[in-house]
Amino acid sequence: MRVNLANIWVVLNETRYPENIGAAARACCNMGITKLAVVCPERLDRSRILKMATHEASHLVENMLLFHDLKEALSGFNFVAGTTARTGRHRLPTHGPRQLARTVAPISQVNKVALLFGSENSGLTNEHLEMCQAIVTIPTAGFSSINLAQSVMILCYEMFCACTETTKRAPRLATLQELEGMYRHLSEMFCAVGLVNPQHPSYWLHLARRFLGRCHLKSKEIRLIRGLCRQVLRTVNCMKQKRL
Amino acid sequence: MRVNLANIWVVLNETRYPENIGAAARACCNMGITKLAVVCPERLDRSRILKMATHEASHLVENMLLFHDLKEALSGFNFVAGTTARTGRHRLPTHGPRQLARTVAPISQVNKVALLFGSENSGLTNEHLEMCQAIVTIPTAGFSSINLAQSVMILCYEMFCACTETTKRAPRLATLQELEGMYRHLSEMFCAVGLVNPQHPSYWLHLARRFLGRCHLKSKEIRLIRGLCRQVLRTVNCMKQKRL
Repeated sequence: MRVNLANIWVVLNETRYPENIGAAARACCNMGITKLAVVCPERLDRSRILKMATHEASHLVENMLLFHDLKEALSGFNFVAGTTARTGRHRLPTHGPRQLARTVAPISQVNKVALLFGSENSGLTNEHLEMCQAIVTIPTAGFSSINLAQSVMILCYEMFCACTETTKRAPRLATLQELEGMYRHLSEMFCAVGLVNPQHPSYWLHLARRFLGRCHLKSKEIRLIRGLCRQVLRTVNCMKQKRL
Repeated sequence: MRVNLANIWVVLNETRYPENIGAAARACCNMGITKLAVVCPERLDRSRILKMATHEASHLVENMLLFHDLKEALSGFNFVAGTTARTGRHRLPTHGPRQLARTVAPISQVNKVALLFGSENSGLTNEHLEMCQAIVTIPTAGFSSINLAQSVMILCYEMFCACTETTKRAPRLATLQELEGMYRHLSEMFCAVGLVNPQHPSYWLHLARRFLGRCHLKSKEIRLIRGLCRQVLRTVNCMKQKRL
C-alpha cells in the first residue's frame, strides 16, 4: 500500500506555548503529515515556533491554517478524533492510539481527517469532544499528563505505522542440508583441536546443535562458521605436517 | 499480567541540551519507566532539566545516574538496544520500535535492558552500535531527524504497550561484560589461526559481532564459545612449541 497521509490534519486548539506548535510541526513532518491548523493560540510567536520546527518542517508552519473558532476549523472534515487524558462519563467510548489509527487509516484515504488536540493546561472540554467521531486516550502508567507535542508524535507515529502496515517479509533461512554440512564441519574441527569427551564423544556437537539450532541461521552465516572451521583445520594440519 | 518495566533503563549518550534530558524524563515517567542514565552530557543544568521534566518526573532526574564512559555505563546490562536513524551497512539488522518492544518486553522481565540514544547532532556511531544486541530505527516519512525526547517517547510508549500485552517469559541473558570478554577471546583465536584480513583487520570480529549479537546469548553459551577458543588456542600454541 502506498503511504497516503495527505488527508490527515493535526489541529491544535488553544495552545499556550509556541514551542509546542513548532515541536508538533516537526513531529508531523517526521511522520509524513503535512497539514497543520491552529485554533485560537494564546501566543503565535513565529520565531519561537520555527526554532522548534527546525528548517525541515518550516513549510508546515508557513502553510499552517489559523482559525478563531473550533467549529469553523472542523467544519470541512469528514472525521474528527479528539485526544483526551480524562475518561469521564457522557462521552464516546475511547480508543487507544493504535486501534484508532487502524480504524482511521482506511477512512483517511478518501476522507478528510482531523486529529484534534486541546490546550496544554486543560485539554479538550466536553463541548469540544462532542464534535468528535472518536475519542483517543494515550495509555500511560499513572502520570497521564503527556507533553502536547509528545501526544502529537504518538498519534502521528501510529497513523504512519497504520498507513504503511504491510506484511513484512521474513528473512530466508539456511536449508537443513546446509545446517548438517556445518555440523559435520564443526565436528571435524572439535576433533582436530581435541574437544572430545571420551565418555560422551558427541558432547560438544550436542551443545553446538542446541545453541546454533535456535539462531535461525542464514546461508551467509553458515558460510562464516564453515570458514572458521576450515581455517582452524588448515592451521592445525599445516602445523602437523611441519612437525613430521 | 502486571506491568513490569523496572528493569528497563533509558540511557542517553552525549546529550547536548538539558531540556531534552528533562523531556525524556517526563516521557519515561508517562510510560512507567523509572530508570534514567546519562553519559557525558555536554551540559547538565539541573534547573533546565527539571523545568521540562515537570514536578511529576523530578524523582527520575534526582535518581538519574551519570557516567563518563559508555562502555562502563552499559557493562551491567544484559541487553542493549541502540537507536539510529541511519541504516548503514555492516550492522545488525534493524528493528522497528514495535517489533523491538515485543522482543524486549519478555526479556526485560528477568534481564536488565538499556534503550540507548545518541546525541542530538550525530546519534550513535558505529562503535557505539557494536555494543548493542539490537538496533532500532523509528520509521519516518523522509524527514528522519526526530527530536531526541520524541524518540525516547516512541520507544517508551512501545515498551509500555508491549509490557502490558506480554505474557512470555524470557531466559536470563549474558551481560555486556561477558559478551565483550567473549569477543576478545574470539579475536585472539582468529589471529592464532590466521583469520586476519590485512585490509580490514577486524573483519572477522565484525562478522562475529553481527551474527552473535543477534543470538541473545546466555552465560552458558558464552562459556561454550570461550571453551572452543581456549581449546583452539591451546592446540595451536602446543604445536608451535613442539615445532621449536
